[in-house]
Amino acid sequence: MTGTKHDSTIYGGIEAGGTKWVCAIGSGPDHVITKTRFPTTTPTETLARAIAFFRDHQHLGPLAAIGVGAFGPVDLDPRSPTYGYITSTPKQGWANTNVADTLRQALSVPINVDTDVNAAALGEYRWGAAQGCTIAVYLTIGTGIGGGAIAYERRLHGLVHPEMGHLRLPHDWQRDPFPGNCPYHGDCLEGLASGPALAKRWGQPAETLGADHPAWVLQAHYLALALVNLVCTLSPERIIVGGGVMNQLQLFPLVRAEVQQILNGYVQASEILEQIDRYIVPPALGGQAGILGAIALAAQDT
Amino acid sequence: MTGTKHDSTIYGGIEAGGTKWVCAIGSGPDHVITKTRFPTTTPTETLARAIAFFRDHQHLGPLAAIGVGAFGPVDLDPRSPTYGYITSTPKQGWANTNVADTLRQALSVPINVDTDVNAAALGEYRWGAAQGCTIAVYLTIGTGIGGGAIAYERRLHGLVHPEMGHLRLPHDWQRDPFPGNCPYHGDCLEGLASGPALAKRWGQPAETLGADHPAWVLQAHYLALALVNLVCTLSPERIIVGGGVMNQLQLFPLVRAEVQQILNGYVQASEILEQIDRYIVPPALGGQAGILGAIALAAQDT
Repeated sequence: MTGTKHDSTIYGGIEAGGTKWVCAIGSGPDHVITKTRFPTTTPTETLARAIAFFRDHQHLGPLAAIGVGAFGPVDLDPRSPTYGYITSTPKQGWANTNVADTLRQALSVPINVDTDVNAAALGEYRWGAAQGCTIAVYLTIGTGIGGGAIAYERRLHGLVHPEMGHLRLPHDWQRDPFPGNCPYHGDCLEGLASGPALAKRWGQPAETLGADHPAWVLQAHYLALALVNLVCTLSPERIIVGGGVMNQLQLFPLVRAEVQQILNGYVQASEILEQIDRYIVPPALGGQAGILGAIALAAQDT
Repeated sequence: MTGTKHDSTIYGGIEAGGTKWVCAIGSGPDHVITKTRFPTTTPTETLARAIAFFRDHQHLGPLAAIGVGAFGPVDLDPRSPTYGYITSTPKQGWANTNVADTLRQALSVPINVDTDVNAAALGEYRWGAAQGCTIAVYLTIGTGIGGGAIAYERRLHGLVHPEMGHLRLPHDWQRDPFPGNCPYHGDCLEGLASGPALAKRWGQPAETLGADHPAWVLQAHYLALALVNLVCTLSPERIIVGGGVMNQLQLFPLVRAEVQQILNGYVQASEILEQIDRYIVPPALGGQAGILGAIALAAQDT
């Protein structure tokens, strides 16, 4: 079952992203003692840098555990021979990487792995925008798209873990002839609305598209369709949307308005009908959601 | 928390559907003492028939509780003034019907209400195809489309309850110019794939379409897209698909094959890649899933 150790304990956290890793030691948002970040290169080199960071800070005292929020897919089945591995990722060189055991053997501490988005959902649940929610979703829109969820105090793990980036949505071919760029599914959510999809559709990096570029209206449309599907499936009490693409803050009002329009009054909840500004929100922990989520993960038994 | 009372106790169950109500007294699949069914007419008349059934069987002994699995939307928020009501249903005459209090006042027993599909999911979790699952989904494809889920031993309730019939999917306009018939959303899942949608698209009642009619290939396509979205969101360990339309058993192999094709190997789980016959299944309780679910609901504290 889920439990949290005493607060004076210190933990390690690794936000193991596809572009960069962040390592930290601490116990929560008000107590991050030290932190580092470095680019994700090869598995051997990247894991070695993480191990070196924790070894270099042994003088801070023993870590109760290290939580790892990793890009996925991640094998989270304790009965599986590849438990704690990053499995079938298309990321060059990273398929079948034994993350958990490598860290455990080098550092001799308990390692708790989950997806980066389940970790971020947990961080927001413990300290951020999902506090008190029975069901909450954390979605990240960046180089990839992923989603995690908390349900009944647990990170959502079933058959594997959620893969919300690969939702299938109505593709508006008339407005948008771009076929999508997901290597598995073409025009799934990630194929239509990730940073690289935006760059490929519009011929320029997403972050260089002006705030009034028509890209954002289309982007809000696809994100709203995805959020509607999450509402209809999980009925979350809050949806937190982070990731680099969401730094375009003009997306939030566009997405909220379109979610209301698509649902068309069917889901009778004041959170959607009247207070949607507080229903679809950026992470309260901002850019720290991932690394604080990893620390929160370390503090959990399972 | 969730709890189950001792097995010698007897319970009432009401499967409160939009077309018919089923009332029963018993304690499980091997112990249904008596049962009746009648058409859903006006709220007053229908509730009166249910009340009369339980009064007529008082000689069987006191009921510990009555569980009601109702067509929705249902207000499941205990803090709400309309807790236990059927709320914004488009069903003529039934909007804002106080189901729970009417039964409670007439029969002086605890009433536990949930959606019909959350109740059926619970019945399958307790006695059927979802036993032992951490996360399982029950979907019904009939006059309407609805879905319920069990996660971590709980029926999934968040903001409200799942509304899986209203998922937004890619509409294959080339193969299928039918615009959909959902009064709220047009071509959502229910608008494309419910029994009435089939009847309207093909100009004849769904049950009269032969097993080799092209209707079923298109139907399997839409159902598979919906199931893929449920896999990507909830990562269930089993998906149970019931309802009148699924009496067309040829749909199961078509849906399974198309789920595999759409996921395209992305979700690395043997349940999907190798054993999908046991992953997407009809209810083990068959046509009894609804009423047994209502009895299971009565046996739960919350």
